[in-house]
Amino acid sequence: MTAGTARERILRAVLQVIGTDGVAAVTNRRVAADARVSLGSITYHFPTRTDMLRDALLGFVTAETTRLTDLAESYRDRGLSVADAAALTERVVGDLGWSAERLAPFELYIQAGRDPALRQAADDCFAAYDHLTVTILDALGVPDASTVAPTLVATVAGLQLRRVATGVPQDISAAILRLLVPAP
Amino acid sequence: MTAGTARERILRAVLQVIGTDGVAAVTNRRVAADARVSLGSITYHFPTRTDMLRDALLGFVTAETTRLTDLAESYRDRGLSVADAAALTERVVGDLGWSAERLAPFELYIQAGRDPALRQAADDCFAAYDHLTVTILDALGVPDASTVAPTLVATVAGLQLRRVATGVPQDISAAILRLLVPAP
Repeated sequence: MTAGTARERILRAVLQVIGTDGVAAVTNRRVAADARVSLGSITYHFPTRTDMLRDALLGFVTAETTRLTDLAESYRDRGLSVADAAALTERVVGDLGWSAERLAPFELYIQAGRDPALRQAADDCFAAYDHLTVTILDALGVPDASTVAPTLVATVAGLQLRRVATGVPQDISAAILRLLVPAP
Repeated sequence: MTAGTARERILRAVLQVIGTDGVAAVTNRRVAADARVSLGSITYHFPTRTDMLRDALLGFVTAETTRLTDLAESYRDRGLSVADAAALTERVVGDLGWSAERLAPFELYIQAGRDPALRQAADDCFAAYDHLTVTILDALGVPDASTVAPTLVATVAGLQLRRVATGVPQDISAAILRLLVPAP
């Protein structure tokens, strides 16, 4: 964990600490040690602990939604079907392995339940997933994309949570198709 | 927090501590103080910390699914429609206020991602929600209840998570109808 700028290393260390030991374990001292930066560097980049938690959450979600947007666009020219998009989502969000870092956003959403200063960031994150979903659904010609998107985002989040909690892979692709393709 | 048996008081205190300060804050000392029991009482009822976390999670989910089952049955004779059931779910899971105790199950699902000894309990919890959902869907005459139930459970969990994280009420009822009533 030494590549990248100090700020990037700090944010990666924050996600790692949260995923491993929970939000309560995030202290300047611990993060500085894990990121191999000075304590002064932490307080320079992040005046408050909330700043650090917020930027770690936004950083994770921005990276994930950007990656998914890029993937979706690379498929668009090849004529993506709803089934393709569902399978793609499954591959990206359902099968990445369950590293500590992947637990961190869930921890941060719950932390936002306790700390109102994190709620705007959480709202921005869900809005980013909504936006990504609308973009993909529009490209697929699914009607009413903006109405269905938040339901779809919630379903995927819920299946990810069940996957995390139980260790049992969830059929994300089938759930997406159930939501998008009218029953016969 | 003094009503109930020592065991009940301990489990309530565990959920309260988790909801307020996270799983890491659950120590025998803290729980004993909050539940107003002796340290010996804690170790008598719960030989390990994992036992305590597991029973707290199972206790919460059993109470919630029992309450929902009772409600659904009390409505059954009056001729429950899908829309009624959706509104009922919204009222029960979406609008109870966001006490510390309601954050606790989410924390415990994430903890199960770290601690394999909790995964069976998490699996049992999701199975209980599936079972409840199948019971309600069957009573409503919804076809394919056991196929659609896990998707519905995930959607509700995801919307609850978004509600927790953003503080913005989610339209759980509309999402359920979207899943159950074929698009025109």
